[in-house]
Amino acid sequence: MQLPRPKYLIGPNPKRPGLTRAVQGVDHRGEPVDLNVVEERPLTIYLNRQEIVTAMTIGDYPDYLAVGFLRNQGMLSDAEEITAIDYDEELEVVVVRTASQTTFEEKTQKKTRTSGCAVGTVFGDMMEGLDQVDLPATRVRTSWLYALAHQINTTPSLYLEAGAIHGTVLCQGDQPLVYMEDVGRHNAVDKIAGWMRINGIKSDDKILYTTGRLTSEMVIKTALMGIPVLASRSGFTAWGVEIARQVGLTCIGRMKGKRFVCLSGDERLERDIDPDQVPDEARKTGRKGAM
Amino acid sequence: MQLPRPKYLIGPNPKRPGLTRAVQGVDHRGEPVDLNVVEERPLTIYLNRQEIVTAMTIGDYPDYLAVGFLRNQGMLSDAEEITAIDYDEELEVVVVRTASQTTFEEKTQKKTRTSGCAVGTVFGDMMEGLDQVDLPATRVRTSWLYALAHQINTTPSLYLEAGAIHGTVLCQGDQPLVYMEDVGRHNAVDKIAGWMRINGIKSDDKILYTTGRLTSEMVIKTALMGIPVLASRSGFTAWGVEIARQVGLTCIGRMKGKRFVCLSGDERLERDIDPDQVPDEARKTGRKGAM
Repeated sequence: MQLPRPKYLIGPNPKRPGLTRAVQGVDHRGEPVDLNVVEERPLTIYLNRQEIVTAMTIGDYPDYLAVGFLRNQGMLSDAEEITAIDYDEELEVVVVRTASQTTFEEKTQKKTRTSGCAVGTVFGDMMEGLDQVDLPATRVRTSWLYALAHQINTTPSLYLEAGAIHGTVLCQGDQPLVYMEDVGRHNAVDKIAGWMRINGIKSDDKILYTTGRLTSEMVIKTALMGIPVLASRSGFTAWGVEIARQVGLTCIGRMKGKRFVCLSGDERLERDIDPDQVPDEARKTGRKGAM
Repeated sequence: MQLPRPKYLIGPNPKRPGLTRAVQGVDHRGEPVDLNVVEERPLTIYLNRQEIVTAMTIGDYPDYLAVGFLRNQGMLSDAEEITAIDYDEELEVVVVRTASQTTFEEKTQKKTRTSGCAVGTVFGDMMEGLDQVDLPATRVRTSWLYALAHQINTTPSLYLEAGAIHGTVLCQGDQPLVYMEDVGRHNAVDKIAGWMRINGIKSDDKILYTTGRLTSEMVIKTALMGIPVLASRSGFTAWGVEIARQVGLTCIGRMKGKRFVCLSGDERLERDIDPDQVPDEARKTGRKGAM
């Protein structure tokens, strides 16, 4: 089996200044020790004049994170025109501005006049959003999945530098395109959504490969992003599987070496390669817990 | 070194009905396969009449989760009297009722009258709450930390059954007391906070042992819970370390076998045992990613 080399549009950049910091501590023997730890800062996201949330992030793509978060929370629709994304590094604030007031802002104001804070409706809106999801029947070759897993697991990343990181990778065919990392996995996914939104990238021929479990939140986000295939080395939750089946999302988990389990949307899979042809996972590519 | 057996007040109960479900899928060869996956349901939390949030949870302790969440978000102070915790299993709603309107509810109403949704202030309130934190100078023996790690890593848990779970354990001396798990780690921590609040458990002689990284959120929660020591197998983030040092929290990470790194609050540690006396970690106790 040919193993391609990844050509990321955006790849992890673990050496980027400001992502990690050396911190001095004490080890088990009481001896001084230096540790490289990942930087994490609060970023407050505004939609026009409305303060939305403060997210903890490694701070590499505040624009993608803000737009992606708003989009994935259903606060910014694909039809609403973004006129500016203003990032103030000192204040640690990013404002996403739109041409006209968003539906979300209208609804929020209406809700607060009647019944107080609108936080609780966000979940309800997300679930409603799922009703409108119509994922395409795009075929996916298992040879692509194996190639993706191999390339991603051998990509040097911030995780390998300093731990404490989750990653998610947007892929097309057997090619990883955009590899985002952050302290919280939802940030990594939101950054991808932001990149797609800002760059007008279509979702129907994409695959999302992620660290961590395929929880209901992960499945919902992927479906709302219009991506028909979600894959991970890790496991599932029952509700994640249920939602995936409802919306017709292909969910592949427990991907290790030649093995995987598909608990939803198996009809998209084209098993075009004999699993015994897939190279065993070299021990060093088996990253514990993350990718 | 004597290795004690844990006597949990609340221990993980992986066999508890309803925590996992068998789901049928298809493997890499296209063969049917059954997988045990963890159950995860939405739980909507109310504080009196105010809808606060919908959390995804395995659903084992909705009362502890609700109270702990509200407490850790600064919405329910230790002074405010809880009169009832009403859980409706069918509606998947839990209402925490207090004797009188909470300060949070007053502030929220005030904020929404003036400036819309109050979501964005929660972070600010949390940071302010840290100013009031005064953690005790309690001494902690490293022999306790090693004993705790050993007991916790060998405890059968839902993670071992079905993956997809994070855990956090409240400990005292060398004794694990309360082991909570959930799909999201913050839920596990909140359940512990809820248990402590409802049962009037003091925090100053406790240790919190957790899966996953010692992020700023984890450090903030631990400090706001009044617990002076936080430990994990995993790594740190720079801001988590900074906050820990500001509030005087002892943070121990990268705990594996005899090794660990303390990046904050080393003055609490009493190295009462030669690390070379600590048994090597048996391979099977090394749980990938989680504990």
